[in-house]
Amino acid sequence: MTTPPVSFTLVASAGAARAGVLTTPHGAVPTPAFMAVATLGGLKGPSVQQAEELGQGVILGNTYHLALRPGAERVRRLGGLHRFCGWRGPMLTDSGGYQVFSLAANRTISDEGVAFRNHLDGGKLMLTPEESVRIQRLLGADIIMAFDECPAAESDRAYVEACNRRTALWLARSVTAWRAAGDYGGAAEQALYAIVQGGLHRDLRQASLADALTHDLPGYAIGGLSVGESADDRNRVLDWVCPLMPVEKPRYLMGVGTPLDLVEGVARGIDQFDCVLPTRMGRHGMAYTDHGPLRLKRQEFADDAAPIDDTPSQAARVSRGYLNHLLKSGEILGGVLLSLHNLAYYRRLMARMRAAIRAGRFAAFADTFRATYRDDRPHDQRPGRDADPDRVERPAEIPE
Amino acid sequence: MTTPPVSFTLVASAGAARAGVLTTPHGAVPTPAFMAVATLGGLKGPSVQQAEELGQGVILGNTYHLALRPGAERVRRLGGLHRFCGWRGPMLTDSGGYQVFSLAANRTISDEGVAFRNHLDGGKLMLTPEESVRIQRLLGADIIMAFDECPAAESDRAYVEACNRRTALWLARSVTAWRAAGDYGGAAEQALYAIVQGGLHRDLRQASLADALTHDLPGYAIGGLSVGESADDRNRVLDWVCPLMPVEKPRYLMGVGTPLDLVEGVARGIDQFDCVLPTRMGRHGMAYTDHGPLRLKRQEFADDAAPIDDTPSQAARVSRGYLNHLLKSGEILGGVLLSLHNLAYYRRLMARMRAAIRAGRFAAFADTFRATYRDDRPHDQRPGRDADPDRVERPAEIPE
Repeated sequence: MTTPPVSFTLVASAGAARAGVLTTPHGAVPTPAFMAVATLGGLKGPSVQQAEELGQGVILGNTYHLALRPGAERVRRLGGLHRFCGWRGPMLTDSGGYQVFSLAANRTISDEGVAFRNHLDGGKLMLTPEESVRIQRLLGADIIMAFDECPAAESDRAYVEACNRRTALWLARSVTAWRAAGDYGGAAEQALYAIVQGGLHRDLRQASLADALTHDLPGYAIGGLSVGESADDRNRVLDWVCPLMPVEKPRYLMGVGTPLDLVEGVARGIDQFDCVLPTRMGRHGMAYTDHGPLRLKRQEFADDAAPIDDTPSQAARVSRGYLNHLLKSGEILGGVLLSLHNLAYYRRLMARMRAAIRAGRFAAFADTFRATYRDDRPHDQRPGRDADPDRVERPAEIPE
Repeated sequence: MTTPPVSFTLVASAGAARAGVLTTPHGAVPTPAFMAVATLGGLKGPSVQQAEELGQGVILGNTYHLALRPGAERVRRLGGLHRFCGWRGPMLTDSGGYQVFSLAANRTISDEGVAFRNHLDGGKLMLTPEESVRIQRLLGADIIMAFDECPAAESDRAYVEACNRRTALWLARSVTAWRAAGDYGGAAEQALYAIVQGGLHRDLRQASLADALTHDLPGYAIGGLSVGESADDRNRVLDWVCPLMPVEKPRYLMGVGTPLDLVEGVARGIDQFDCVLPTRMGRHGMAYTDHGPLRLKRQEFADDAAPIDDTPSQAARVSRGYLNHLLKSGEILGGVLLSLHNLAYYRRLMARMRAAIRAGRFAAFADTFRATYRDDRPHDQRPGRDADPDRVERPAEIPE
C-alpha cells in the first residue's frame, strides 16, 4: 500500500472545534477550510489567479454537470480538470449524488443507479457508483466523493431508510471501483470520501455513519443537509454525528453555508465546507460581513464612501457607493468584485477561526460572532447548494 | 502659467509613425497607447487590478453616461472618478459629444447645446460646452475633451458644415470654461483636447483642424470616425489631417478600432486610441490575434488544447477548449478572460509597434501585420464605439 494521497493532521482543538492541515497532491491547506464551488470548472466571474491571490485553498467541481458539459472524456483529453481550468491547488469533485435530490423531477432511481433526463437537452445520463468513480477519475481531482442518495429534508422515514440502504450499497461499490484503480486511487492518486446520510433521524444518521466507517477511507462527509432544513435541525444532526466520527480523519459538511453556519459547523468539529453562497450571492449584490450580509444595491449605500469592511480583496479598493453604482447599472464587474470579497471574507473567517482554536479562545470567538451576525432574510431566501446552474444561477436583477 | 498637467515627448518616428511618452498627473504612458473604455467607471468584467497587472496605460470614462448614473456630483462626493473606481493611472473623459451622434433619436441641438431625453428614464439632460467641462471637472480625469457635434458618416455636406460651425463655437466656449478654472484646468490639473470634425470631406476636415489650432491646447483629437464609414474612408481622413497636426502635441483618434485599424492609425501618426472592441467582443466570445479574431464559441475549438496565442494574460493559463466550454455554458468568466486577453493583446500590439518605430522597422511590421491579419466579418458586424450601453452591451449569446 502506497502513501495515502490525502492525509489529515490535527494541529489543535478547542472543545469540539479542530484546527488541522489537509495535505493533497496539489498542496496542503489549513483547516477548517472553505472550498469554493466551480460547478462547471470556473468560479463564475473570478479567475483562478484571483482565487489564488486571495488565498483560496480548495475548489470543487461537479461530476454531473461536467459529465454533461463539456464531458469527462473531453476534460481528460484537455489534461484533466486541474489543467483544464488552470487551478494549481487542491481540488474536490462531488459525485452527482446531490443531483438525485436537486434534480428529483428528472431522474429515476434503482439499485443499479440513477437515470437522469439531463436538464440541457433531455438526453439520458446514467450515474452509478462505478460510473461516478470513472468520471471522477477522468476529471482527476485530489478528493472524490462516493455516489449516494440524498433525501430532501421533508422526506418520510421510510424514504430516508431507503436512501440509507442504497447509500450503503453504493458506497461499497464506489470503494470497490476506487480500489480497483490501485491503492488510494492508483495512478490518479485520488482520495475517496464516504457520505453520511440519514435525514433528520438520529438513529438513521448514526447507522449511516456506522456503515461508512466499515470502510477505512481518507475522509468522511455529512451530506443531506442544506436541503431545506432549519439551522437548528442541521446543528442537531452535527451534534449527533460529529462526536462519533474518527478524530484522525477530515470531516466535510457538504453544501453549507452562511458565515454563521460555518461557525456552528466548526464549533461542532467540521473541517471542510463548500457552498455556492459567496459567489452566487455576490452576483446578486450581497456582501458578507461579521454583521451579516449587506445588500449593496440598496439606495442607502449610494453615497457610502466606506469599503465593504476590512477584508483585503480587490473590492477593498473601492467604496460601497461604487459597488452600488455597478450593481444598479448591471455591470458584470459588480458581481465579480462582490464574489471576490465574499470568497476572501469566507477564507479569512476560516483563518480567524483556526487562529482562535489554536489560541484556545474559539468559544469566545463563536459567541461574539453569534451575537453580532444578523441576517433578517426569511429562510427560504437563503439558497443552499447548486442544483441546476442553468436554472438557478441567472440572477434576474443583474442583467449583464 | 503653471506647468502643463499633461505633456507629450516625441521619442522616435518612422515615416509618419511616432513613438512618444504622454505624461499626466497620474503617471506617464508610452505611446502609441490604447485606452480601455470604462464607460460607467468600470471595465465590465476585468477589475482595475487586473487592468494594472496587464499593463493598461489609460482608461476612459464617459461624461454623458456618468452624469446620468451615478451623477457627477456623487462621483465628486466619493472622491472623483479615480478614487471612485480605484484606478491609479491616467484617465480621460469624453465630453458627451459622441452621444450627439449615437443617441441621435433622443436629442435636439441648438447653438446653446444639446438637450437629451435620457435613455434610462426619459428625463432631460442638457449638455453645453460649459456643462460638459463642469461635469468633467467633477469627474477629475487627467485629460478632458471639448464638447463637439459629431455627424454620422452618411451625413450630407450641409450638415457636416453645420457640425463644423457648432464644433468651433463650442470649442471656444469649452476653452473659456476650462481656462476659467485656472491655467490648464487649475486645481483640477486637467488637460483639454480639441476634437476635429468634418466628416469625409477633405476641406471640412482641414478647416475644422485649422479652427482647433487657433487654440493652443495640450492635445488634438480626430472625432467623427467609427461612425459607419469604411476603413478606406477612415484612413483617407487620417491622410488628410495628420500631416497638418502639430508634431509636438499628442494626437488621439477617437473610437478606433480593430487591431488592423490601430496599425493603420499608427502608420499615419496617431498616438492615442480608444475603443470598446476588446472588452465588448471579448464578452461576445471573440479573441483578437495577429491572424484576426478567433470566435471561440465555435465547435472547432472544443478540443483545442492550445492557448489563444502567446499573449501573456490570465487567459493564457487555459486552453481554447476551456474557453469554448465557458462560453457555451454561459459562464461570466469566459467573457472576463477574453476581455483580459484582448486588452493584453491590444496593449502588447501597441508596445510592439512602439518598439518597431524605435528600431526603424515600423513599415515592415505594418506590412507583415496587414498580410497576416484576416477578419471575414461583414463590416456591419464590426461595432465601433459605445453608444448606449444599456441597449448595446447585453450580448444575447452570453446569458449571464
